Formats: sequence, C-alpha cells, structure tokens
Amino acid sequence: METISVIGAGGMGCAIAKHLSELGYEVRIYTPFEHEVSLINKYKENPEKLPGVRLPDSITASDSIGEVTANAGTIVMAVPSQIIRRSLLGIRNELDRSVLYVNCSKGIENNTHMLPSEIIYDMLGDVRLAVLSGPSHAEEIARRVPTAMVSASSDRNTAQTVQDMFASDYMRIYTSDDVRGVELAGALKNVIALCAGIVDGLGYGDNTKAALMTRGMAEIARLGEKMGARRETFFGLAGIGDLIVTCTSMHSRNRRAGIRIGQGIPITEAVEGIKMTVEGYDSCRPAYELSQEYGVSMPITSALYEIIYGILDVENAVRELMMREKKDEFI
Amino acid sequence: METISVIGAGGMGCAIAKHLSELGYEVRIYTPFEHEVSLINKYKENPEKLPGVRLPDSITASDSIGEVTANAGTIVMAVPSQIIRRSLLGIRNELDRSVLYVNCSKGIENNTHMLPSEIIYDMLGDVRLAVLSGPSHAEEIARRVPTAMVSASSDRNTAQTVQDMFASDYMRIYTSDDVRGVELAGALKNVIALCAGIVDGLGYGDNTKAALMTRGMAEIARLGEKMGARRETFFGLAGIGDLIVTCTSMHSRNRRAGIRIGQGIPITEAVEGIKMTVEGYDSCRPAYELSQEYGVSMPITSALYEIIYGILDVENAVRELMMREKKDEFI
Repeated sequence: METISVIGAGGMGCAIAKHLSELGYEVRIYTPFEHEVSLINKYKENPEKLPGVRLPDSITASDSIGEVTANAGTIVMAVPSQIIRRSLLGIRNELDRSVLYVNCSKGIENNTHMLPSEIIYDMLGDVRLAVLSGPSHAEEIARRVPTAMVSASSDRNTAQTVQDMFASDYMRIYTSDDVRGVELAGALKNVIALCAGIVDGLGYGDNTKAALMTRGMAEIARLGEKMGARRETFFGLAGIGDLIVTCTSMHSRNRRAGIRIGQGIPITEAVEGIKMTVEGYDSCRPAYELSQEYGVSMPITSALYEIIYGILDVENAVRELMMREKKDEFI
Repeated sequence: METISVIGAGGMGCAIAKHLSELGYEVRIYTPFEHEVSLINKYKENPEKLPGVRLPDSITASDSIGEVTANAGTIVMAVPSQIIRRSLLGIRNELDRSVLYVNCSKGIENNTHMLPSEIIYDMLGDVRLAVLSGPSHAEEIARRVPTAMVSASSDRNTAQTVQDMFASDYMRIYTSDDVRGVELAGALKNVIALCAGIVDGLGYGDNTKAALMTRGMAEIARLGEKMGARRETFFGLAGIGDLIVTCTSMHSRNRRAGIRIGQGIPITEAVEGIKMTVEGYDSCRPAYELSQEYGVSMPITSALYEIIYGILDVENAVRELMMREKKDEFI
C-alpha cells in the first residue's frame, strides 16, 4: 500500500493517521515537537491532543519533514492555519509532481487573507490537491463514529481519488468542485462558533443559538458568493454541517473559548485558557476585513470583531443584533 | 388595542398568548378541554403543557370558539396539525373578511397531504394569512429568551403586519414570501429530528448527528424545490434553524421520542410515552408519500418510514445510509 504523510500531530492529524492506517496505508506523522515524536513512537499516543486514543503500532512520527515525506504518495495537511506556510518549508524543494495533497486545515492566513489551499499553491506551485472538510471532530473519528465529509477539488478525478482513499464503513465521503466554498465555510464557521459559545456563556437559550447559527451561515454564504464560491456549499456538510458540530459539542475549542467570554472572562485570558489554537479568534479579523473589502453586510462577524477589539461589550452586542432594522430573510 | 384569539392552549399557544399580551394586546385562548379552561382562568397557567409559566392576569380562556373569536382582529392557530381542520369548524360561519390569520401549527395533514395554510384556505376561503415559524421553543419564548422567526405571506403587507405585531426587544421577525417553503420545512424537519433522536439513542456522536441534519435538510429542500418552494427557505430560520433547535434540545418531543426508539423501545410505545403529539411520527408517512409522488430521493425519510413500518431495524438503517453509492454532494 502507498505511504501517506500526515503533517501535524494534533487531534485531527492523529485521527486521520489512525483512520488511514486502519485502511491499510503506511502512515508517517510529522510534528516539529520532539516530545510529541517520542510519545507517538514510544506509547503510540498523543495524550495532550487526542488523549485515550491508541494509534496503530505501524504509525511512526518524526520531526524531520524530509524523512516523513520521502516517497510519500499523499501528504495530508493537518496543522493550524497560521503555520501552514511554515510547515511547507521543509518539503518545498523535494517535490514530486505526482504527490497528492489533502488539506484538512481550516482557517484564513492573517494579513494575506489566503485560504489553506491558496497557501499550498503559493508555496508549492500547481500541485494535485483536494480539501477534506465537514462535521468531523477528531475525537469521534478516532472512535469510529459514523461521519460524513466532503472531498473538494477543482479536478473531479482528484476529488474522487480522495473519496476512495478515505471512505470506510463509518466514513462517508461526498465529492464537490467548490474548493473555495469549502475552505471559506471551514474558516469562517469558527467565528460563528465562538459567538455561539458567547451566547451559551451568557445563559441564553437554544432559540438564540439556532438563530445565531442560521443567520451566521447566511452572512458567510453572502460573502462566499461574492468571492466566487457556490452558495449551496455553505448549506452542506462543510458549511452548516460543520457549524452544527462545532456549536453543539464541548469538543469544540471555539465554543469553549466563547463560553468563557460570555461568562465575563476577559477575551485574551479566555482564549489563552483553552491552550490550543482557537481558530475563530484568529479568523475574526480577516473575516471582518473581507466583509469590508467585498462590501458584504456581516453583522454577527462585525459584532464579534467589535467585542474582541473592545468597541462593544457582549450584552450590548446581542441587543444591537436583535434590534436592527426589520428585514426580509433573504434580501 | 386589538383583540387577538389564540386557538390552542398547548405550549406554543400559551407562550404566544403571553408574548402578545405583554405587548399590550387583549388575548383570549380557545381550548376544547374544560380542565385547561379552568386552570388558565383560575391559576393563569397550563401546568401540563407549559409548566412554571404564569400567564398575564388579563388573559382568559374559553371552550367556546365563538366567544373567543368574537370581534378578534387576529386569530393565531397553534394546534397540532392533524386537528387544524376540526378546530376551524367553530369559526367557519362567523367570518369577518378583515380578520388576519397567523398560523403557528406545523405538520402535514394525513391523507390530504395539505399544509396548515392550505387547510385554513380550504376551510375558510381566501382569508388574510401569514405563517410564523422558526427556531422557537415555547418554553424559551415564555422566558423572553432572544428568538428570531420568519413571518411568511404571499402578500408582503400581511407579512410585515405580522412582523410589526410580534416584534419585541427579544423577538426578531424576518419577512418572507415563501409560505409553502416555510410550512414544508416546519413539517418535515420533525421527521429528521426524530431520526436525530434515534442517532442519539443509539449512542452515535456529534459528527453523525450533524451529518444527518445537513443531509436531512438537503433532501427536504430537494422535495420543496420540486413542490414550488424556494430552496433558500430550507436553509433559513424556518428550515435549518428550526431543525437545529429541534435536534439539539431536550425540549423537543420529536427528539425525545427518537432517543427512546434508538434505545430499543418499540416504536408505538416510544411515541406514546411522550404523551404529547410527536409530529415527526405523524409526518413521516405523508413525507414519504410526497417523495414518491414527486420522484425525489429522500433516503433519510425513507429509512425512518421503513423503521416505523418494521421493514428495517435501526442499526441496519444507519449502515445502509453510510454505505450508499458514492456521491457528489449536490448532484
């Protein structure tokens, strides 16, 4: 079976590595952190990022990206969005054009506003690439919980190759050609998930959170359409599906950070308390800037931006959202 | 202030009555059940249907529909879908054409496959009508939890009249012209909510439930589009928004019934144990029949239909859904 390199030993990296290893692939994990390398090689576990999940014995880890990616047919990206660029540096010069890249990272790069696939193209040139996204907590993939995801590529064959590679009796994969929509949805839903956490932390109800999620995805879809994505993608697995899982589960770091903010903990403290990357916090400024650049009204994203930068407090933000001028749902 | 009649003293009827009364309207409630009439008139509460919520003193109830609807400017329908027709009998002959009807009932009438507004038109002729729907647990409206809903009418002015009537500092109303989409979404989401409960009862995870909800609303939207509704309605407050609130909350009777089915309790026993109407159970057969009539693939609705009628057991149904032929997300 072909060799697959997984870049990143976080929750998703480890869960994907386990999944592919169980499907018969030879899997190697790259992480820059020496203690993660030895934990995975010695104990077959990353107890900080995916506690309680034993990886198959055949999986190995290394902090040498050259070693991990040597002869790999497929390279899976599963690192926080702000370090994708840095992570690609090591494989930059040893590139085999037949290698398939599968991006599982979600987010927008600060300053450049690039989506993960755009960063990969920017660094590696015109590689073969698909994006894998959808409602997929790593903790549940690792437990073989029935999960559905989208494999998106501008090339239909590539999307189907990834579909065939990842599909199993507990993993259903749909194909799509809307890479931009899938990645935008995956990045911006974290902003809404952080807001949903705030609403929970404030003690509001299920009605409030469902309205926030629905109107949140509607504003992301408005932006996405302006940016050339397909509207329906935002109401599919990578959009509302992923938002649902992120907003309703305690597995979600974005939601947990939001709850702390809603409870009155100062923002930087609330985010730092989570100890792992809170993508919704990182993605809020680029999302706000994109809404300005494309002239799209995004009241929820704007409210979070104003909360983060101290312009508005949380309770007034909710009040302002409720009392905006009366509107038609889709105009 | 004008007088508003609320038909139905269930959770939603009582919550809407309280909301409108607090906005200054004179509100009268109709219920055919004598004990509900006396509980509301004496104790200002319906402890079976909306326990712990005290209604304003000015609200009165009666089991005489003629008395309740006399001189009412607005009549709000809030009864289970299968008894809308019966409930309208009493007001049939005393009709004032200026009366505004607001439908809050959700479901499809068995046998006729009529939606609530269609039943109202069928019984009363061409009345002024809007439909109010969205993620709105009665228990939370009664607690003044921030809530957003859609007011849909084929007549824009009517939709806006209802928007103005119901809007408050904790109730945000959007308008829409897609009555059919709003009502179909409201009826059929209960089928998916029942399935989501089953998935919970089986012990599957957040990934599974989010995928089910997303693919469930996608199949409802496919049917809706074929039936002349607007696709986007299904991804708005009355569609995915209402589905989210129904699938994630223990307030939901559909979800609670589903959990019991997933835990292995026989279906009729599971549904009867809820003691209130389980709309998803009632709506499954009409939904399945509509999918056949319009030739629309609805694998999740069909699976529930086969479970209810003993053709398939729940675990095999999940397996079949996961292992269907590989697909594109939107083709």
